[in-house]
Amino acid sequence: MRIAVDAMGGDHAPDEIVRGALSYREKGGPADLVLVGREDVLRRALGATEREGIAVRDARDVVAMDEHPANALRRRGDTSIGVATVMVKTGDADAVVSAGNTGATMAAALMTLGRIRGIDRPALCGMLPTSRGKPACLLDAGATMDADEHNILQFARMASRFMERVHGVASPSVGLINVGEEPEKGGRMQQAAHALLSGAHDIHFYGNIEGRDVIRGVTDICVTDGFTGNVLAKGMEGVVDVFVEGIRNDIFGGVLGKVAAIVALPGLRTFRGRMDYDPYVSAPLLGVAGVSVVTHGRARAPMMRWAIIVAERAVATGLVNVIGEGVASAA
Amino acid sequence: MRIAVDAMGGDHAPDEIVRGALSYREKGGPADLVLVGREDVLRRALGATEREGIAVRDARDVVAMDEHPANALRRRGDTSIGVATVMVKTGDADAVVSAGNTGATMAAALMTLGRIRGIDRPALCGMLPTSRGKPACLLDAGATMDADEHNILQFARMASRFMERVHGVASPSVGLINVGEEPEKGGRMQQAAHALLSGAHDIHFYGNIEGRDVIRGVTDICVTDGFTGNVLAKGMEGVVDVFVEGIRNDIFGGVLGKVAAIVALPGLRTFRGRMDYDPYVSAPLLGVAGVSVVTHGRARAPMMRWAIIVAERAVATGLVNVIGEGVASAA
Repeated sequence: MRIAVDAMGGDHAPDEIVRGALSYREKGGPADLVLVGREDVLRRALGATEREGIAVRDARDVVAMDEHPANALRRRGDTSIGVATVMVKTGDADAVVSAGNTGATMAAALMTLGRIRGIDRPALCGMLPTSRGKPACLLDAGATMDADEHNILQFARMASRFMERVHGVASPSVGLINVGEEPEKGGRMQQAAHALLSGAHDIHFYGNIEGRDVIRGVTDICVTDGFTGNVLAKGMEGVVDVFVEGIRNDIFGGVLGKVAAIVALPGLRTFRGRMDYDPYVSAPLLGVAGVSVVTHGRARAPMMRWAIIVAERAVATGLVNVIGEGVASAA
Repeated sequence: MRIAVDAMGGDHAPDEIVRGALSYREKGGPADLVLVGREDVLRRALGATEREGIAVRDARDVVAMDEHPANALRRRGDTSIGVATVMVKTGDADAVVSAGNTGATMAAALMTLGRIRGIDRPALCGMLPTSRGKPACLLDAGATMDADEHNILQFARMASRFMERVHGVASPSVGLINVGEEPEKGGRMQQAAHALLSGAHDIHFYGNIEGRDVIRGVTDICVTDGFTGNVLAKGMEGVVDVFVEGIRNDIFGGVLGKVAAIVALPGLRTFRGRMDYDPYVSAPLLGVAGVSVVTHGRARAPMMRWAIIVAERAVATGLVNVIGEGVASAA
């Protein structure tokens, strides 16, 4: 197995990306890795010695984090994410992983790999920590804006196969994000989606869930359209950031605060451990005809290593084929 | 001025509601209050002495927090929220305030008071604390599910007048909740709403904002449809709850944690102060032909007092008329 890693994408690229790749191999990761990016920069980051199972593939350009993805990809053929994704198309790699511009990773996957036959729209599968200490998957986190109820059903099916195969969750439960429990809640689309999900036999439908249930891990999968999913994921992340700053600056800032932090250290570790989502935060783009995994722009080496593991498991378990077969048998 | 208070609604009704009403009057609140609910219970909560400016109006029934609002109101004519809202219709009160079932408060307002002429759909104006230490208003927090771009423009106008009049914000900025900054982001509705908001001269349109910008207070007003607004508000609240539990149990639980909490007390106070949203959390239902204010189901006396103040200011500043005149002149 060979995984192409966009070594230039993310806030801490290329150093932390390269470190993540090295750590993946050092800890026994079985896949060969190809770091895609500026060869001179990557060779320097890798150091002088030859690293077994890690190759470099030159790509001179990068899509910036704030750049318009489709435009950048169309105008410039030699971006790291573009080259890495083409490697999957040509069979030079089995998967692509990036911490870079999410829109560019999605656009590259859709333009280059296309969709799985029978899948109408793709979904970005956002992984979130929950207070139950297990991950939940929120999709669509932003790939398909005006999703209809049929898209939602496909999202639920794809995420079910992903959680079973890649995260080993048996019979993952699916919650439909809504404004209340009752089937008649929500707008026209949510009501229609509730009916479709209720009738599907290849998923384990829990029913409607509300915004607050996502972080509680009430269901393994939280399904919604890409607009709502993106706004919700970013809204929740915004609150996490404000609280982390508050804990750091208000509570444990200042002299007394620093003393308190030392005394509270075991508790802080417990809390941090509960919120540590490195192992599962990486999100696959489901529905494309190849394995494309997006991880957080803030990714450092440990998160990058886990992103590669997510891609490796998706390849090893044949996720793309499983999704395709599921769509065919449901049709 | 007379304000009808649903004394039976909310997790801590009636005691904390009654205490909130008493505190409003004791601190010099000018409006007369009418507590609506089971007279025997309320008289007991009020104590033996006659309270100047506080009357009781008997209503034998209550809509439970988890009850289907419209059904409950249709079947039972003598609920506290139903009676309190009818008082506004008949002129026996100038406003209604409730910490009870939000759906019931909205349904009662729509069924009894109706909409302001020219307003197509109502919006629940959710007030949130922000890291800038000033409130932001998120609407629609759940009144109108399938809002279109014309509804969104009306929501922005109504919230602008509310923030100016009731919270004294000069020229409040309006952000359209979206998945990115650029005007072409989002689904069909968001793109159309961006165009409409850009062309409106009676609001101060900032542009698109993302989910994470809401808690940062990037704009004074965050406008979206009622489905997205409800899911986002509850999602953010869910994260707040999990963090508060984490701070309490993980970090400051246990013996060492309790010692740390004492040392960190000044910082904890700062943090708590920053997150204290009692003064502004109460949400008016905008677009109905009367003042109807919803506050949090968790409301205790201080929050209830502020909810009454919000209603008082909305009445005193003629908010309903101002909204009506704005719609007429925009048409």
